[in-house]
Amino acid sequence: MEFTIQQIAAMLGGQIKGDGQAKINMLAKIQDAKPGQIAFLSNPKYEQFIYTTQASAVIVKKDFVAKKDIAATLILVDDPYSSFTVLLEEYHKFISFQKVGVEEPCFLGKGSSTGDNIYRGAFSYIGNNVKIGDNVKIYPNAFVGDNTIIGNNTIIHSGVKIYSDSKIGSNCVIHAGSVIGSDGFGFAPQADGTYKTIPQLGNVILEDNVVIGANTVIDCATLFGDSTIVRKGVKLDNLIQIAHNVEVGKNTVIAAQTGISGSTRIGENCIIAGQVGIAGHLVIANKTGIGAQAGISKSIETEGEKLMGSPAFDVKDFFKSYALFKKLPELNQRLRELEGKLVAHHSNGH
Amino acid sequence: MEFTIQQIAAMLGGQIKGDGQAKINMLAKIQDAKPGQIAFLSNPKYEQFIYTTQASAVIVKKDFVAKKDIAATLILVDDPYSSFTVLLEEYHKFISFQKVGVEEPCFLGKGSSTGDNIYRGAFSYIGNNVKIGDNVKIYPNAFVGDNTIIGNNTIIHSGVKIYSDSKIGSNCVIHAGSVIGSDGFGFAPQADGTYKTIPQLGNVILEDNVVIGANTVIDCATLFGDSTIVRKGVKLDNLIQIAHNVEVGKNTVIAAQTGISGSTRIGENCIIAGQVGIAGHLVIANKTGIGAQAGISKSIETEGEKLMGSPAFDVKDFFKSYALFKKLPELNQRLRELEGKLVAHHSNGH
Amino acid sequence: MEFTIQQIAAMLGGQIKGDGQAKINMLAKIQDAKPGQIAFLSNPKYEQFIYTTQASAVIVKKDFVAKKDIAATLILVDDPYSSFTVLLEEYHKFISFQKVGVEEPCFLGKGSSTGDNIYRGAFSYIGNNVKIGDNVKIYPNAFVGDNTIIGNNTIIHSGVKIYSDSKIGSNCVIHAGSVIGSDGFGFAPQADGTYKTIPQLGNVILEDNVVIGANTVIDCATLFGDSTIVRKGVKLDNLIQIAHNVEVGKNTVIAAQTGISGSTRIGENCIIAGQVGIAGHLVIANKTGIGAQAGISKSIETEGEKLMGSPAFDVKDFFKSYALFKKLPELNQRLRELEGKLVAHHSNGH
Repeated sequence: MEFTIQQIAAMLGGQIKGDGQAKINMLAKIQDAKPGQIAFLSNPKYEQFIYTTQASAVIVKKDFVAKKDIAATLILVDDPYSSFTVLLEEYHKFISFQKVGVEEPCFLGKGSSTGDNIYRGAFSYIGNNVKIGDNVKIYPNAFVGDNTIIGNNTIIHSGVKIYSDSKIGSNCVIHAGSVIGSDGFGFAPQADGTYKTIPQLGNVILEDNVVIGANTVIDCATLFGDSTIVRKGVKLDNLIQIAHNVEVGKNTVIAAQTGISGSTRIGENCIIAGQVGIAGHLVIANKTGIGAQAGISKSIETEGEKLMGSPAFDVKDFFKSYALFKKLPELNQRLRELEGKLVAHHSNGH
Repeated sequence: MEFTIQQIAAMLGGQIKGDGQAKINMLAKIQDAKPGQIAFLSNPKYEQFIYTTQASAVIVKKDFVAKKDIAATLILVDDPYSSFTVLLEEYHKFISFQKVGVEEPCFLGKGSSTGDNIYRGAFSYIGNNVKIGDNVKIYPNAFVGDNTIIGNNTIIHSGVKIYSDSKIGSNCVIHAGSVIGSDGFGFAPQADGTYKTIPQLGNVILEDNVVIGANTVIDCATLFGDSTIVRKGVKLDNLIQIAHNVEVGKNTVIAAQTGISGSTRIGENCIIAGQVGIAGHLVIANKTGIGAQAGISKSIETEGEKLMGSPAFDVKDFFKSYALFKKLPELNQRLRELEGKLVAHHSNGH
Repeated sequence: MEFTIQQIAAMLGGQIKGDGQAKINMLAKIQDAKPGQIAFLSNPKYEQFIYTTQASAVIVKKDFVAKKDIAATLILVDDPYSSFTVLLEEYHKFISFQKVGVEEPCFLGKGSSTGDNIYRGAFSYIGNNVKIGDNVKIYPNAFVGDNTIIGNNTIIHSGVKIYSDSKIGSNCVIHAGSVIGSDGFGFAPQADGTYKTIPQLGNVILEDNVVIGANTVIDCATLFGDSTIVRKGVKLDNLIQIAHNVEVGKNTVIAAQTGISGSTRIGENCIIAGQVGIAGHLVIANKTGIGAQAGISKSIETEGEKLMGSPAFDVKDFFKSYALFKKLPELNQRLRELEGKLVAHHSNGH
């Protein structure tokens, strides 16, 4: 990435004070910045650094009045912090999509096609009859099974494993080591104590704008034509387990190490904390909030409930009960005293 | 896969009504089926679809009487659902073992041998002195360390990592991203607060018919000649942790995200739910059932116990206690009232 | 590995009784040992085996008096067990560092450099501008992103994924499938219910002597110039989640499947058991001990506390409360009896 200060100012709708021709190739904090870098000043506590910074440019508030000479070029904007955030996002997008081309050796099966501006890292594997959209980035050592479809602008990080027949939407990110489409955990007990594998023949669908963390697993659906579905805008953290035939509703966010058992349907815009366990065949209402390490064993029917505990119930009630759990020795003592008094009372002739 | 209807009918011991020569290449639900596909009708609720389905063949009950014309060829059997299940299993087996041959580049170390009908995907790595049986499928980007033995008909999915000296049985499936044989977690505390690594020199043995889910980890045993052992017929789900020197008994089933600490011996035919934690150096009796998120801190000596809670105890007792945990504020209130009454009682001159 | 008995005796400062020229290539238990192997005798219970062992050499105590003829050469030392441990460690070191050279195909990006005695396995990927020290072992299918630095004697097992800009110290081991530097889980809720990705632009630093288990994930820090830091001597087990901007203090040990949320600072020499969850933005004091499955929701300010429960509190208090939790039905019964007595009492005219 290399822009002139002028180009950046134009992007932010800001005014330049100083040399607009200098080149910027990096963002930095004002106290750490080096020549060629751009910083911002928003919090007055950091004003001291603007007089000594080596940054080539600093984004400041329109009405900023310098108390000393400033070496850096200034870009004057309404809100320096949000302007810097815009640059961060642009920079992140640039970083994310900068890899282009095909590194050899990599594998492309028969009948597979890839769009424009794609990156296929060395040792990445794409099976047969795979369709890959534009701007897709397949990092090294990733595996994409036969008949899979991947939408535009999706990033598949290194070592991701996508089983056959998966459908991955556009603008998705799947972080390193995650597995999409492994067999659902289905076994039929036999009379002799062994288990017979129930064939897992469905697939996984990730809709658009889904983010999957690292080393997360999403199993395929059991039956032909059925899918485990992760809806539009869902964000899953690392090391999460999504079992066969689960559906995760639109814009739901799930933190690390949570597990959702088979055939459960999670609503939209839920917020599920880390290390939560949700049993199978449940329906969880929209906007449900579930606290860390909770265990959900029943369907949640009312929107917007907040739950805690294992098995979970209303979070406020949980904390009331838990406060008394911590006081159980004291409660027991009070009970004993009452028992003692009553005995004493009776033995006193009452 | 492509069979004539006649061949399928023969496989199922069914009678054909219609054209037996048409070819079938896929299974489908009766309401979704397309030409070239076979469906079944078992539940009368779905009867309507048999008159409109595009399936080339439909499996029906022997005594089925059509109310209208049917375009599809019928296969008459005793139990359409179980006949369809047979086809599903055949299809699944076909799908699972269809990959044959060696995709280049892939790596085969010195002194290693592979059996008949094996598949070695591109970028799969097989170290030195490895012995691989017949019909084994090693998917792309899998790693098999030196001196490992893999039995017949075993499937190693993409990105599986098997450390040196492991022994994998026949008819096993290891799903993507799982790690077999990583170092046990053993460190000796030193006087200066640091830890010294205890060399981990044992291995892992998976017996026959073991299924391992995705991103699960099984550590090797600590000592030379010792093994972490997963017995015949065990089924492990995704993201499970099996520590060094653990033994998991025959036909035990363990759900996702459960962890078993070092040197614990799990009995046969246990059913262990998800996110369970089991401490080290325990012995768990056969047929023990452990509920989700339970924490096992003591050995279980009696067969067939069902446990819940952390630390866990009898599941029925757990739920009785938990019901009262939820009512603790009420219990506290009752206690307060009693205390009040007794005080009032006493101050009344009793 | 092949040494003469003489060389081994010299290494251990022991005296030889018998032929010192024989060659040793393996360690074994005295009851299992074969020619070419060395064993030890420490526990008198095993003395019987020394008269029948096929080991070429046995390490024994200086003052050991044989009751029968012994075929093996003896090495006389002060403490046979600790001498054998020295050999185990040497053997382990030898095994760990024996791989040397470059297996083709593997990938080395532009501007990257590697030190002496390094191993780069087939299908390993090293990006651009990576600096790799001496004796580093990069196993097959490992991925090392651009601009990463790896210190001397560090072992990166197969299928490890290290994102760009990471800094890995010397004498580290990262086990198979672990992910270093994936995006922190940061999303800003938008008015329409969707979430916007917060760019994750920091990195991960692992200091020296760090051990990371298999399939563990360590996210990068959020801001430019910030780091998620794992300090010197930390040992992390398998399937652990370390979120963005976390710092794990020197010599802290964390067991499998534990998760630490964003921006939390763990002290030095803590011992954290398995399946623990620690909330975000906390500070945990040095030498804190946290029991399995505990949930930490508040900072721990005093050194040396031991905690249990979710939310966690003092471990002794937890077990007192938990003992009474198990007796809640009995407590409830006692409460009922008191209520009954008081009612009876009153109705008796008191």
